[in-house]
Amino acid sequence: MQAARLHGYTDEMDAALEIDDVDRPEIDRSDGVLVEVEGAGWCQTDNHIVEGMWEEYVEQDLPMTLGHENAGIVAEVGDEVQLVEEGDPVLCHPVQTCGICRPCRRGEDMYCENQAFNGLTTDGGFAEYVLTNERAVVPLPDGVDPTEIAPHADAGITAYHAAKKATDELNPGDTCVLIGIGGLGHIGLQCVDAMSAADIVAVDLKAEALELAADLGAGHTVDSSEEDVASVVAGLTDDGGAEQVLDFVGRDETTSLAPDIVAQGGDHHVVGYGGHVHEPCQAMVFGEFSFRGALVGRYAELQELVALVDRGDVELHTERHDLGEINEVAERLENGEIEGRAVIQPP
Amino acid sequence: MQAARLHGYTDEMDAALEIDDVDRPEIDRSDGVLVEVEGAGWCQTDNHIVEGMWEEYVEQDLPMTLGHENAGIVAEVGDEVQLVEEGDPVLCHPVQTCGICRPCRRGEDMYCENQAFNGLTTDGGFAEYVLTNERAVVPLPDGVDPTEIAPHADAGITAYHAAKKATDELNPGDTCVLIGIGGLGHIGLQCVDAMSAADIVAVDLKAEALELAADLGAGHTVDSSEEDVASVVAGLTDDGGAEQVLDFVGRDETTSLAPDIVAQGGDHHVVGYGGHVHEPCQAMVFGEFSFRGALVGRYAELQELVALVDRGDVELHTERHDLGEINEVAERLENGEIEGRAVIQPP
Amino acid sequence: MQAARLHGYTDEMDAALEIDDVDRPEIDRSDGVLVEVEGAGWCQTDNHIVEGMWEEYVEQDLPMTLGHENAGIVAEVGDEVQLVEEGDPVLCHPVQTCGICRPCRRGEDMYCENQAFNGLTTDGGFAEYVLTNERAVVPLPDGVDPTEIAPHADAGITAYHAAKKATDELNPGDTCVLIGIGGLGHIGLQCVDAMSAADIVAVDLKAEALELAADLGAGHTVDSSEEDVASVVAGLTDDGGAEQVLDFVGRDETTSLAPDIVAQGGDHHVVGYGGHVHEPCQAMVFGEFSFRGALVGRYAELQELVALVDRGDVELHTERHDLGEINEVAERLENGEIEGRAVIQPP
Amino acid sequence: MQAARLHGYTDEMDAALEIDDVDRPEIDRSDGVLVEVEGAGWCQTDNHIVEGMWEEYVEQDLPMTLGHENAGIVAEVGDEVQLVEEGDPVLCHPVQTCGICRPCRRGEDMYCENQAFNGLTTDGGFAEYVLTNERAVVPLPDGVDPTEIAPHADAGITAYHAAKKATDELNPGDTCVLIGIGGLGHIGLQCVDAMSAADIVAVDLKAEALELAADLGAGHTVDSSEEDVASVVAGLTDDGGAEQVLDFVGRDETTSLAPDIVAQGGDHHVVGYGGHVHEPCQAMVFGEFSFRGALVGRYAELQELVALVDRGDVELHTERHDLGEINEVAERLENGEIEGRAVIQPP
Repeated sequence: MQAARLHGYTDEMDAALEIDDVDRPEIDRSDGVLVEVEGAGWCQTDNHIVEGMWEEYVEQDLPMTLGHENAGIVAEVGDEVQLVEEGDPVLCHPVQTCGICRPCRRGEDMYCENQAFNGLTTDGGFAEYVLTNERAVVPLPDGVDPTEIAPHADAGITAYHAAKKATDELNPGDTCVLIGIGGLGHIGLQCVDAMSAADIVAVDLKAEALELAADLGAGHTVDSSEEDVASVVAGLTDDGGAEQVLDFVGRDETTSLAPDIVAQGGDHHVVGYGGHVHEPCQAMVFGEFSFRGALVGRYAELQELVALVDRGDVELHTERHDLGEINEVAERLENGEIEGRAVIQPP
Repeated sequence: MQAARLHGYTDEMDAALEIDDVDRPEIDRSDGVLVEVEGAGWCQTDNHIVEGMWEEYVEQDLPMTLGHENAGIVAEVGDEVQLVEEGDPVLCHPVQTCGICRPCRRGEDMYCENQAFNGLTTDGGFAEYVLTNERAVVPLPDGVDPTEIAPHADAGITAYHAAKKATDELNPGDTCVLIGIGGLGHIGLQCVDAMSAADIVAVDLKAEALELAADLGAGHTVDSSEEDVASVVAGLTDDGGAEQVLDFVGRDETTSLAPDIVAQGGDHHVVGYGGHVHEPCQAMVFGEFSFRGALVGRYAELQELVALVDRGDVELHTERHDLGEINEVAERLENGEIEGRAVIQPP
Repeated sequence: MQAARLHGYTDEMDAALEIDDVDRPEIDRSDGVLVEVEGAGWCQTDNHIVEGMWEEYVEQDLPMTLGHENAGIVAEVGDEVQLVEEGDPVLCHPVQTCGICRPCRRGEDMYCENQAFNGLTTDGGFAEYVLTNERAVVPLPDGVDPTEIAPHADAGITAYHAAKKATDELNPGDTCVLIGIGGLGHIGLQCVDAMSAADIVAVDLKAEALELAADLGAGHTVDSSEEDVASVVAGLTDDGGAEQVLDFVGRDETTSLAPDIVAQGGDHHVVGYGGHVHEPCQAMVFGEFSFRGALVGRYAELQELVALVDRGDVELHTERHDLGEINEVAERLENGEIEGRAVIQPP
Repeated sequence: MQAARLHGYTDEMDAALEIDDVDRPEIDRSDGVLVEVEGAGWCQTDNHIVEGMWEEYVEQDLPMTLGHENAGIVAEVGDEVQLVEEGDPVLCHPVQTCGICRPCRRGEDMYCENQAFNGLTTDGGFAEYVLTNERAVVPLPDGVDPTEIAPHADAGITAYHAAKKATDELNPGDTCVLIGIGGLGHIGLQCVDAMSAADIVAVDLKAEALELAADLGAGHTVDSSEEDVASVVAGLTDDGGAEQVLDFVGRDETTSLAPDIVAQGGDHHVVGYGGHVHEPCQAMVFGEFSFRGALVGRYAELQELVALVDRGDVELHTERHDLGEINEVAERLENGEIEGRAVIQPP
C-alpha cells in the first residue's frame, strides 16, 4: 500500500515526506483493529515532528508513516474485538492504550505507560490502512462522514480537552479569552460556547479569523496587531481579568499576557507550544494564577466531542487533498495559509 | 505607642525599620477591632517589602508600620461587632475584607476588591496596637498562646493553603515533594501529612532542615546540595514523578525541576517567589503539568489551620524578640540564620 | 404603609392574608437597606407558609408580612453602605446574612447562622417597603425591569442552584431529566440548556408545559399522564438512565422514579417538597445514586442568574396583580391555574 | 476441585452452601487469569445472596460458587497477559470489567456494561481456584499475606470508597460520624483517619466495637443503645451537625438520623443496606443534605487501599476457617457473632 513516510528530520516542508510502497499492516493481537483510512488530518504537530521537535520527548524509529488524525472504515478486527466489526465507520483516538496500567484505570489515556501513538511513535494514517486497537476507535453515529470528522481525532480532542478544563471553572458572566482562532481555536471556541454561559473574547492577528470567531459565538474580538489585548480585557472585565484563558498559540508574546489578563485564581491554559513561559514567581503568587499545560484529550472526551458534533454544536471547515499533495499541505500550513483543517485522502 | 515603621525601601536589613512613637489607631467603623499585639511574626515577605519588591504590585504610603502575622488581645470593638469582645484572644488574618464584593461572596478573601492588608498596604502589627476588622479576626481556642500562634496568620495560612490545594489531588500511595523545609515548608509538610496519606519527599540544602522534615513525617529526605533531585524522585516513583510538588523556594533552580519531577497531570505549586519560571511550552504540554501560583489562604482556611493546631497536628517552633531587636531579626533571616519563625513581642 | 400579612395558619387560600396598615420599617444598622417594592413574586412556598408547613423548621412571629421574591428601588441606606445608593434598582436575595459566621465565610449564604429570611422569618415584600441589608441586594443592570425579574429572587435562584449542581456533572451527550416544567422548572430548563450540552428530557402532566419545554430547549418531552417515564428514559439512554434528574415536584410518585431513571453514579435532585423519599437502601447502593436536597441558591449564584438574564439566556413569563388580589393569586396557584409566575405590585 | 456452591435461596444459614466437587475453571480468553485461592472473605453480602436478596438486581444461575473477596497465587495466565505471571500473589477486585465501554473508559469499573462479578453473577472464590481477568487482579507488595488481605477485595474497597467520598468533602475541624464499627466500619474509620484531619465520632451498640473505634482513631464514641445520637452530635458540633455521615448499617433507624445529625450541605452515605430511607422532601430541602448510595470501589481505589495497608495505615483483624466450616461462619455472622472478618481457606 502507499504511505507517506518521514525518513529524516528536516526544515524543508516541501520535501517533508516520501510516498513509499509498503506492506499493509497485520493484526497481531486479539484486540487489533485495521482501519482503511478515509481521511487523515494534517496538523501543526506534523510540522513539529518533521522538524525533529518531538525527538527528545518520545522514541521515533524512522522511516515512519505520519498521521495521527485518522478516520475510516474497519477492514479487519482481532478475534476478541467486540466494539466494532468490518465495515463500521470509526474515528481513531491517536493513542493505543493498554487498559491495564494505573493511568488507564483512572481514565487517563494520555498517560498510559504502554502506549503507542499513531503517527508519532508508530505508523500513522497517511496511508491506505492504519493499524490501531479496540480501545482507540470510536464508532461513528449514522450520517457522520469519516473524512469530515478526521481532524477531531487530534485537533478537535485537544481543543475540547482544554475547553472542558476551562468550562469546569466558568460561571455565567465570567470571561473566557481564546488566543488564536485557527484549527484548534475555532473548535475550542464552539466547545466553550456549547458548554458554558461565559462571555467569549477571541484574539487573533487576522481579520478572517476574527470574523469566524464572531460567527461562531465570540461576544468580542480583538485584533492583536492593532489593539492592546490587556487593555481590552481590562475594559471588558472591570479590571478583574478573564477567569480562563485558552492559549492556542503558546508563543512568548502570548504567554506573557497572563499576569495582565488572567483574573486572580484563574488559569492560562498552554495548548500551543511554539514558545516558552517566562514569568516572575512573584507575579504568579500575587495574581494566584496558573499556567496549565494541555495535552490531547482522553478517549471518553473524544466520545463527548462526537456527541457535540452529532448535536450540531461544533462544526469544522476542512479542505481535502490527495496523498500526493501532502508536502504541499505541510508547506502551506507552515506559511499560515490554511484556514480550518486540511485532510489527506489516501487512494 | 511604639511602632516599627518603614520610611524608605532599602537593601540594608540592619537598618530596615525605625522605632517611632505614633498615635494609637482609632476605630472608625462599626466593624472595627483594635487588637493589643502580643506577638507579630517576621516573615520573608517583610524583607521583600523592605527591599521595595512589592511597590509595583500594591499601593504603599511610607512611613508604614510593617507586620502581617499578628495575634493578641481585643482591646476595643466597633459598635456592631458580634464575634469578639474586649479581652478575647485572637489571631488576625492579614487582610481586612469588605464582605460585599463578588470575590468576598465566594469566600475568596484574598481577591477582595476593597481590601486592606496590614503591614503591606496599611499599618501592621510591629506595634503595641493594630487596627483590623471583625472579618479578619479568628477567636482562639482556650489554651492557645497568641504569641506562639502569630506566625500562622501568614506563614501558616500560606503553607496550609498550598498544602490543601495539593492534598485535594493526592491519593494514598501518591508522592508529594516539598522543596524548602523552612518557616513555611515545615508547616506545609505537617499539613500534607495530616490531610493525606501521600508519601512525602522533603528537599533542602541543610541537614537540620532535613532532620526536622524526617521528624515531622517525611518518608524520604533529599539533600539537594549532594543529590540529584530528579534522579531521586524518579527512583522513588518508578519514573512516574510526583503527583504534587510544593515549592516553598521559588527560585529558577527549583522551578526548573518541574518537567523532571512532576507526574503527568500534576502540579508544581509556586509558593516562594525569589525567582522565575522559565519553561518551554512543549514541556508543559507533553507533561501536561501546571505551574500554580499560591497566595495567602482564606479566612476559612485560617480557621481550619487553627483546628489543626488545636488537634496537635501542626506545631511551630518560634524564637521571641523584643521590638527593639527587629532589624537584627530582619538581617538574620536574610542570611538564612533563623530556624522556624521569629516573633516580635511589642512592649 | 400597606402590607399583606399572615395572622394565622390556614388551608383557606382565599383568606390567606390580610391587607394591614403598618409602619414603614426603619433602618437600624449601618448596613441596612430599605427598598421600595416594585414587584414581589408569589411562590408555592408562600402557600406552604400559609398552611403552617414551615412552622416546625423556623421561628415565625405572626402577624408577618409574606413575600420573599422582592425587587424594587433603594429608598434609603444605612450609613456604611457602599454597594448601592438611593434610587438604584435592586433584586433582593431573600436572606439577609451576617458575613461573619463560617458558612458565610465559605460563600454558603443559605447556611448563615445569623440569618433573617424576608417573608419567612421576618417581614417580606408584599408591602410598600421591605427592609433588607447590603449583603442581600444585587444591583440590576440597565434595562432590567425590577418587576419582571422579581421572581428570580427565589424561584429563579432555586432553579439555578439546582441546575448548576446538575450541570457540574453533565458531559456532552449525557441526559438530564427535568420533572415539572412550572414556575421553577421552566427556569431550570433554560439554565441547564445555557450551561451544558446535555440532552434535555422534560416531564410534565400538562400539554402547555411540555410545549413550553420544547420551545425553551428540551430535546424530548414526556407526558407522564400517558407515557411511562421510566420506559421513555430507558429508550433514550440505551437503558443507562439519566446522569442527572431535577425533580421540581418532589412528590412520592416522582421521587420513586429514581432507581429506574437515574444512571449509576447519578443524582436525583429534590427541589420540590410536597412529598417524601421512600427507597430501599439496596436500590441506592446497587444504583449508587443519590437523593440530593436543593435549597435556595447563594448570593453569588443570584449574580450569575442575573448575568444569564442579561445575556438573554433565561426568560421569565409573569402575570401582574395588585396587592389587593393577593389571596386570589394564592388560591389560583393552589389550584394549578397559574402558568409561569405571578408578581404582586404594591401601591 | 472443591467448591462451596449455592443451590437454592434459603434463610437457613447453617445449610447455606454445599461443598461440591467441580471441574477446575479453564482460561478461555487472552486476558484470563486463574488464581489458586489462598483466602476468601465471607461477607454480609454473602448472607444477602443466600437469602435471594440480589436475585431481582442481577442474573444468577444456580448452582453458583460464592466468594467475592478473593486473594491467592496466580496459577495460569492467558496468552496476552502482561501484568502478572504464574506464582505472583494477587488480590482480586470482585468485578471483571471489559475496559471498552464508556464507564470503563472513565475509570468507573463498577458501572461496566459487560461485567462479571465473582461470587455474585459468576463463580467465586470459595473454591480451590477462581477464574478472573487481568483487569481484576492487583499484584501484592512483598510481605503482604494474601489470606490476610483477602477481605479488602470487597469489605475493604467498599469502606474505602465511601470514606474517600466523605474525605473529599472534609476540612480540618469538620466532624465525620461513622455508624456501625463492624467489618466495614472499622476499615472505613481508619481510612477517614488516614486521609483527613476530621474529628471522628463512632456510633455502635456494642462496647467492644466502640473500644476498637477508640483504639483506631475515633475522638468520640457513642453507645446508641444508651445515648441519643442526635443530642451527642449536636453537642459536639455546636448544633451544626456532622459534615459527613458514613452509615455502614443502613437500617431505617440509622437513615432516619440524617435530618438531625447531618450538617446543611452535608451527606449521609448509605453503605449498609438492610433497610430503607424514608424522609420528607421538605427536610432534605431545608437541610440541603443528600442520601448518597455507596457501591463497591473502583480498581484504582483498590490499589490505593493496598497502598494504605502497605503504609501501615489500615489494619484488619481476621479469623481463619477451613472450607468445610463455611456454613457455620455464615450462621455466626448472621447472629452478629463475628468481630472483624472471617476468611475461608480452601484446601
